Amino acid sequence: MERVVRHFQEELEALQGRLLEMGGLAEERVRLAVQGLVERDTGLLDGVLQHDEPINELHIEIDNRCFKLLALHQPVATDLRAIVAAVKINTDLERVGDLAVNIAEAAKRYLVHPPVKQLIDIPRMGDIAQSMLRDSLDSFVRRDIGLAHQVLNEDDELDGLKTQIFRELLTFMLQAPATVEPALDLILVSRHLERIGDHATNIAEDVIFMVSALDVRHHAPTHPQA
Amino acid sequence: MERVVRHFQEELEALQGRLLEMGGLAEERVRLAVQGLVERDTGLLDGVLQHDEPINELHIEIDNRCFKLLALHQPVATDLRAIVAAVKINTDLERVGDLAVNIAEAAKRYLVHPPVKQLIDIPRMGDIAQSMLRDSLDSFVRRDIGLAHQVLNEDDELDGLKTQIFRELLTFMLQAPATVEPALDLILVSRHLERIGDHATNIAEDVIFMVSALDVRHHAPTHPQA
Repeated sequence: MERVVRHFQEELEALQGRLLEMGGLAEERVRLAVQGLVERDTGLLDGVLQHDEPINELHIEIDNRCFKLLALHQPVATDLRAIVAAVKINTDLERVGDLAVNIAEAAKRYLVHPPVKQLIDIPRMGDIAQSMLRDSLDSFVRRDIGLAHQVLNEDDELDGLKTQIFRELLTFMLQAPATVEPALDLILVSRHLERIGDHATNIAEDVIFMVSALDVRHHAPTHPQA
Repeated sequence: MERVVRHFQEELEALQGRLLEMGGLAEERVRLAVQGLVERDTGLLDGVLQHDEPINELHIEIDNRCFKLLALHQPVATDLRAIVAAVKINTDLERVGDLAVNIAEAAKRYLVHPPVKQLIDIPRMGDIAQSMLRDSLDSFVRRDIGLAHQVLNEDDELDGLKTQIFRELLTFMLQAPATVEPALDLILVSRHLERIGDHATNIAEDVIFMVSALDVRHHAPTHPQA
């Protein structure tokens, strides 16, 4: 029995290691997509568009590891919650990889036009989204609820930036029709980055549930809507 | 033992029933959001914005049911895959509920302006997205792989409509600056509908994996990209 338990813990750690690897790949793809946009480097963007096999292969491998752990070790309590969390986190990270592709596609269209002034706060949104991803995965591995809550707070900042960027770009579009197409693509990029933040938020919520068995999703709003 | 097995099957059926209920709620909210946009009915849209408690409560209840089934019955093979699929489907349906809120928000902003010609193919996108949701859940309950594949095909149609709508609205925006704001909101609505189709696609892929243990995600493209 003790050997089975030790084996289970080893497998669980291996699973976490693979999830971190997947998170690193996803984060790197987001970083490259934003960098390609900022530096107007089509080569970087093409790299993001072409190299999604490693993350897709890891996605399937991690899913299989979760099934195997559930079927062979039939875990309960925290261990069970950790593996179900891993299934969900895996899905979130795969979507982050897809969103990096969406950003690269929008960026390629954007680069066809003259630039819309500066890129406003888009690079900053990219930094926040990446840091949220990193923190959410660290909070999973370290079972760190404080860090998970920090991710939830960062998401508010990201949402605020998205709204602000939308307003600024809308002003450009209304003043100069030539900016309509490129500004539209920047709006899409900012929404993709916001969704990456949403995935990090999902991960943080899963961590809080896993550690405390406390469900922080759908918490009653502090200020009820009219 | 036989009693435990029967009990498990009953619980699994109850879980499926709750998932269908959740799917019905999600679909209804999408329907109301699109109807509110088409009929320019702010009351319908406010209804979508205000009544997300039932779906959020079901989301938590279904998650709990899945954990209980995994912990108490320690299922393997198809049963295990069915419950892990239920966890994932539950997440997808909750996101569909959120997307209905996003559509209602964009529609409310849209209704402030004079209408942009017709709503082009947005009502049709709404119909397809709802039918995909329904079919994906039916394919789960009936373990119907044929129906699941049909959902994957419908998603191509939805993506095509989204691209076409984007082009048409861009033309309006370039010709008449007064259409920039409302057209932008229609573009966002069409993207939310596309994402609802993506969630139905996720569900269909989970069904195919559950029934056949065949992973159809990340299939190699028939025509490799250059």
